[in-house]
Amino acid sequence: MLKAVQNLGCSSGFLSQLWKKAHHNTACGLSSIAISTNPLSNSASTRTRRRYPTTTKLDSFISPVFSTRGTRSERPSRVCETRSESNPDATTSPSSSLAGNVSKINFCQWCGGPTKHDIPDGEEKMRAICTVCDKIAYQNPKMVVGCLIEHDKKILLCKRNIEPSSGLWTLPAGYMEIGESAADGAIRETWEEAGADVEVESPFAQLDIPLIGQTYVIFLAKMKKPHFSPGPESSECRLFDLDDIPFDSLAFSSIFVSLNLYIDDIRSGKLKFHYGTINKRPGSSPSDMHAFSLDNHLQC
Amino acid sequence: MLKAVQNLGCSSGFLSQLWKKAHHNTACGLSSIAISTNPLSNSASTRTRRRYPTTTKLDSFISPVFSTRGTRSERPSRVCETRSESNPDATTSPSSSLAGNVSKINFCQWCGGPTKHDIPDGEEKMRAICTVCDKIAYQNPKMVVGCLIEHDKKILLCKRNIEPSSGLWTLPAGYMEIGESAADGAIRETWEEAGADVEVESPFAQLDIPLIGQTYVIFLAKMKKPHFSPGPESSECRLFDLDDIPFDSLAFSSIFVSLNLYIDDIRSGKLKFHYGTINKRPGSSPSDMHAFSLDNHLQC
Repeated sequence: MLKAVQNLGCSSGFLSQLWKKAHHNTACGLSSIAISTNPLSNSASTRTRRRYPTTTKLDSFISPVFSTRGTRSERPSRVCETRSESNPDATTSPSSSLAGNVSKINFCQWCGGPTKHDIPDGEEKMRAICTVCDKIAYQNPKMVVGCLIEHDKKILLCKRNIEPSSGLWTLPAGYMEIGESAADGAIRETWEEAGADVEVESPFAQLDIPLIGQTYVIFLAKMKKPHFSPGPESSECRLFDLDDIPFDSLAFSSIFVSLNLYIDDIRSGKLKFHYGTINKRPGSSPSDMHAFSLDNHLQC
Repeated sequence: MLKAVQNLGCSSGFLSQLWKKAHHNTACGLSSIAISTNPLSNSASTRTRRRYPTTTKLDSFISPVFSTRGTRSERPSRVCETRSESNPDATTSPSSSLAGNVSKINFCQWCGGPTKHDIPDGEEKMRAICTVCDKIAYQNPKMVVGCLIEHDKKILLCKRNIEPSSGLWTLPAGYMEIGESAADGAIRETWEEAGADVEVESPFAQLDIPLIGQTYVIFLAKMKKPHFSPGPESSECRLFDLDDIPFDSLAFSSIFVSLNLYIDDIRSGKLKFHYGTINKRPGSSPSDMHAFSLDNHLQC
């Protein structure tokens, strides 16, 4: 179930042959790519790191990641302001509080007392604190888990039948539930959205989206039987050749990034695990693929 | 900040020389280890999969992971019941709702109306639904992010100065905040708990703990300068030789698993990325290292 997902936005810092092919007019420049051997690994390790720089287009509102902190008294400066989703039913969906807008928490869930919005003693962030029982309502990022399923050298995609991004294509993915693992959640979502019974083969990517308080965890998976059919949240499910993936009609930045990374890996001859941060332009629409950057991309 | 963390518990399905050395009386058997090439990768890929089976000790209450689902009408059966933490201040900490106990949500955070606990139309799980405005209060797992820092072939550990597991050793780690990436959160927590200014080198492990609704994300990191000092939540920080890590005095299962995997990797000559599920025995204490299993371990 992925009733509400992302604000996406301008892409840069992401380079692939496919990107250049499918988006030859929109690919943003890459000011540098640094490849270095992990100093923690020994000579037998093949772990490498490829960094995508924070892009100039987004520099004005996104703090640099992995910045230096000098003294203990300095306050962390890298937590950027979060924004609401452009999701029509955000207030009644699992994403209702994902933007971390503490002002939306008006009452205490435990005693019903009104809240005040203040920084608690010993903390550094604004929280909703109950004025009656003093309990604090913490908000944390949500995990979205999904599967990238290859079958006969094709990728299984679902056309969304719900907002946001209804009519656009996505990987089967949705919010991880308490009581399940990320892999189990990805399998469940694939069943619900694509009617496909899959087994997870490997972790593939973790993509954080700080602006909307989401982290995508994507697994490589395969179908146990070559069968799939759209669930209620999908109008269609289809296998796409790698050359025919509808990059102009994808629902979310995380899906765009995941598919590009996968194709890059396939073409380079080695599948890897990818970690990165998708920094989105505030206010951009979920289906705008020109308003985000992939920063601090690490792979191993 | 990691005010409240885990119920840990009996370990099995986890094999390392160190485990055998430090826990020669407690290491559980491994009924099988399957190593297979990822069918999705091409011949150049070195991706492998090593599975730790669900252990017999936990079979009675933990549903098998990656199970088969036959028809669409079948309900997912792999979401196990969640339990509360054994955390003295759980109700006022970030973990207050992490166990997913919907009965704890008595009032609507938006309008203050009383909630009812029911399965909404089109869903499958019990939720807290406002009886006044009909909004649903979704609960999702929380991410705990931290750093495994090697310096001069030693590992930086912190002795906890707060409950749970006060007086026991841990990696610097804490809850990821909305508005930051996982890597940024891990860097922040390392600064807050160990006074160390680090940079992330590589993702190392994702360990889901379904019973308590937590996912640990551990990064390999290095200190920019060889300086560290305990923050308010730590009574001591110290570098340990790999042979001297206090496995009998670790605070949490996730830390135990992470350190064992790291040492295994170092000794095998190749650092990898690890994904796995820590299935804990309900009711076990946070510092009980004999009441959990590492299941469905994947590495790449």
